[in-house]
Amino acid sequence: MSRTTPRVTIWNEYRHERSSPDVQRIYPAGIHEALREGLAPYGFELVTATLDEPEHGLPVEALARTDVLIWWGHRAHDEVDDEIVDRVQRRVLEGMGLIVLHSGHYSKIFKRLMGTSCALLWREADEKERLWVVKPSHPVAAGLPPYFELAKEEMYGEFFDVPDPDELVLVSWFEGGEVFRSGCAYSRGNGKIFYFRPGHETYPTYYNAHVLRVIANAVRWTADERGEAPRFGNAQPLETIALKA
Amino acid sequence: MSRTTPRVTIWNEYRHERSSPDVQRIYPAGIHEALREGLAPYGFELVTATLDEPEHGLPVEALARTDVLIWWGHRAHDEVDDEIVDRVQRRVLEGMGLIVLHSGHYSKIFKRLMGTSCALLWREADEKERLWVVKPSHPVAAGLPPYFELAKEEMYGEFFDVPDPDELVLVSWFEGGEVFRSGCAYSRGNGKIFYFRPGHETYPTYYNAHVLRVIANAVRWTADERGEAPRFGNAQPLETIALKA
Amino acid sequence: MSRTTPRVTIWNEYRHERSSPDVQRIYPAGIHEALREGLAPYGFELVTATLDEPEHGLPVEALARTDVLIWWGHRAHDEVDDEIVDRVQRRVLEGMGLIVLHSGHYSKIFKRLMGTSCALLWREADEKERLWVVKPSHPVAAGLPPYFELAKEEMYGEFFDVPDPDELVLVSWFEGGEVFRSGCAYSRGNGKIFYFRPGHETYPTYYNAHVLRVIANAVRWTADERGEAPRFGNAQPLETIALKA
Amino acid sequence: MSRTTPRVTIWNEYRHERSSPDVQRIYPAGIHEALREGLAPYGFELVTATLDEPEHGLPVEALARTDVLIWWGHRAHDEVDDEIVDRVQRRVLEGMGLIVLHSGHYSKIFKRLMGTSCALLWREADEKERLWVVKPSHPVAAGLPPYFELAKEEMYGEFFDVPDPDELVLVSWFEGGEVFRSGCAYSRGNGKIFYFRPGHETYPTYYNAHVLRVIANAVRWTADERGEAPRFGNAQPLETIALKA
Repeated sequence: MSRTTPRVTIWNEYRHERSSPDVQRIYPAGIHEALREGLAPYGFELVTATLDEPEHGLPVEALARTDVLIWWGHRAHDEVDDEIVDRVQRRVLEGMGLIVLHSGHYSKIFKRLMGTSCALLWREADEKERLWVVKPSHPVAAGLPPYFELAKEEMYGEFFDVPDPDELVLVSWFEGGEVFRSGCAYSRGNGKIFYFRPGHETYPTYYNAHVLRVIANAVRWTADERGEAPRFGNAQPLETIALKA
Repeated sequence: MSRTTPRVTIWNEYRHERSSPDVQRIYPAGIHEALREGLAPYGFELVTATLDEPEHGLPVEALARTDVLIWWGHRAHDEVDDEIVDRVQRRVLEGMGLIVLHSGHYSKIFKRLMGTSCALLWREADEKERLWVVKPSHPVAAGLPPYFELAKEEMYGEFFDVPDPDELVLVSWFEGGEVFRSGCAYSRGNGKIFYFRPGHETYPTYYNAHVLRVIANAVRWTADERGEAPRFGNAQPLETIALKA
Repeated sequence: MSRTTPRVTIWNEYRHERSSPDVQRIYPAGIHEALREGLAPYGFELVTATLDEPEHGLPVEALARTDVLIWWGHRAHDEVDDEIVDRVQRRVLEGMGLIVLHSGHYSKIFKRLMGTSCALLWREADEKERLWVVKPSHPVAAGLPPYFELAKEEMYGEFFDVPDPDELVLVSWFEGGEVFRSGCAYSRGNGKIFYFRPGHETYPTYYNAHVLRVIANAVRWTADERGEAPRFGNAQPLETIALKA
Repeated sequence: MSRTTPRVTIWNEYRHERSSPDVQRIYPAGIHEALREGLAPYGFELVTATLDEPEHGLPVEALARTDVLIWWGHRAHDEVDDEIVDRVQRRVLEGMGLIVLHSGHYSKIFKRLMGTSCALLWREADEKERLWVVKPSHPVAAGLPPYFELAKEEMYGEFFDVPDPDELVLVSWFEGGEVFRSGCAYSRGNGKIFYFRPGHETYPTYYNAHVLRVIANAVRWTADERGEAPRFGNAQPLETIALKA
């Protein structure tokens, strides 16, 4: 799959941008459109979907032709239909990539796939965040300097109640004194998941070149080639089994 | 906690043993009673609970005084009440140990905590299983030889659709040609989970000394001491945050 | 780097093929030439190097233009100069990929990078090996079926004394009763390492299409893009540090 | 082993304390004696060894009766005899625990066991360190609050060139803007290793109750029971191998 162009669906709750003037000023067309523009130079096929579309913009056929789904949600996690969550989970296990951004840590789909509360510490205080690369060899770190900074962000602090990532790529330092595992790589079934922390709706985080680079890298990493679909269920023996008394 | 006696609740579906003469012959008082007897020499406090008791034998107070829950189920996974599943999940995240045995891979609670399908290959063919220790330094391997054998068991084969274990302790070889990650150690929240493969209801697996040793080791490992309960939610800064324009 | 053509150096001890008629029959031009032919269709830049060349064919400049080094050795591990081992280790930590094949588990460079004895069980008995994919989502599993077989191979059995792989991709079943972690993915420094078990010199293993696919996948995975070179040593503060009494 | 009293050897370079008045004021009898006093309440058998003793205080018999070795060194890493390093490595692979403290990251034994450069960023600036628990379920976190602070410490910053820890327990926040993986758990062979960051010789870090608790927890964790010694080398088949043409 890495040999071809990944087909990416950017999913956004798209409520704050319509209800809050502060958010609207930063993301006038919505976070999904900012991401679409920011990722355009990377050469992916990009479509968007939002909560208030029919089936939240994620009908079966749309998911079937999605290689990587990017997810941003915050206030309306509960409004996401459980049937759509089932559908997305199945597609991830089949091999679709999933990139969960910021407050998406509390989305139904992320909690479903993690199996934990996904709770954390948080604070909105216009503070500085500095993200350090702790696994430079990981494809999601491609082209990143040893660290990069965001002048103002919401703080997320440990303990972050997720399973240990298969690979930990980024750790954040916060001005107010906390740390956070900000770039977490997982495999589930035949699919890959990347959780990436930054992106509070009141800051222009999704215009930052390093943030966009991480998301683009995560698209490539989750869209990479994989093995054939596993087989499950009853199986005939591959070797002769001796008869026993 | 490792300094005191772990309080263990052995949960069993307890249906096969009452409906199938073949199973009854092997486990006349139920798998839970065989496990209780087998684990007795290890000095744990042992109680049992079964599906058909009120609240499946797992009322809030019973779980509150359980350090480690052992789970065996097979045919009636769907009859387990979702509210009890929620309750067990919360207790695991709070720190209760969970040991999932054999066909419990398809239980609601295991699928919930793993976030995946937990599907696998299987076959009932009276075949030999040999379990190899691949992480001898792990506490669950305490006292185990490099491998041990079960003369007849059900086969479970890869791909096993679970998250990569935090630590892989045992890998099975099957006479019919498959392999399986048979001893998988996980942390979730402040709790620990161990999945252990053997134990089909038609074989006397839970009388095997090595099998009992693994389960006893897993009790000790999951019941071991841990950090204080994590704090979640809004947090005051620990350092002064500079005012920014 | 994945966007460009990986430059691969295939290193072979190249002794058996010249001293043993049995090996010569299978690999008349040496294992390195069989690998070069087998990997040619994948479009890499391929060069070879052997033990008896000056500096074992690995002068500083050759390593500097190598993205991925493939290593096969068996009888003459001790003849590899420690200075060359230092040199290869430095290049791996800088970001060069390293693929260690079969009996290379006992090479100086692999033991150096693993920090363990790399010991294992072994047997030469013309037995069947079946390799199962246990992480289909990993790029090294790209295009692989759930399992593949080698009719005759040397057996390697657990316990394999290596660090837990960052990701375990393949597990082998052996006819004689053992299992083995046959496809092990590691990161070290800014480089990636893949250990791949099959390839005894008396069998035509390196003509097998699945075996070649795994090696080609491992080339792509280890040659993938990465972060900038980490900085080490004394560092000026990035924030103001308060004076304390 | 956890059922009996762990026998701990505290190894210290013991040079700074004799040459620098500033260090002597803090650790008049040496860091090893401060650790011995601080760990005494935990009920271990405690002995010490230092660089300038014959065989660095680590003759074969002393290591043979050591369950856990604690290692502090800084300036004189190169004076540690390679034969003693070989000896310690073998004992770790056999099952001895090893706890490497602070500047011991650059010791020969740690670099040997890690296989990497173990390089990092550092700064001496009397700055605050706050250590966050990121895996509360781990035995090394037993009894720890969500975080603890050291008013003044040397800074160590990422990228820390070590293999990904099997389990990451603690992450440090530094006043000057860096983060660090400060509590790293590894298995190597049949032994366990814990790297713990704090402990610069010019600060009273080893009198801090939380620091001592971490070290005591690490003693228990590395001294815990394990499987039987693995077998290596040529092995007879456990199953009949079919004759092939």
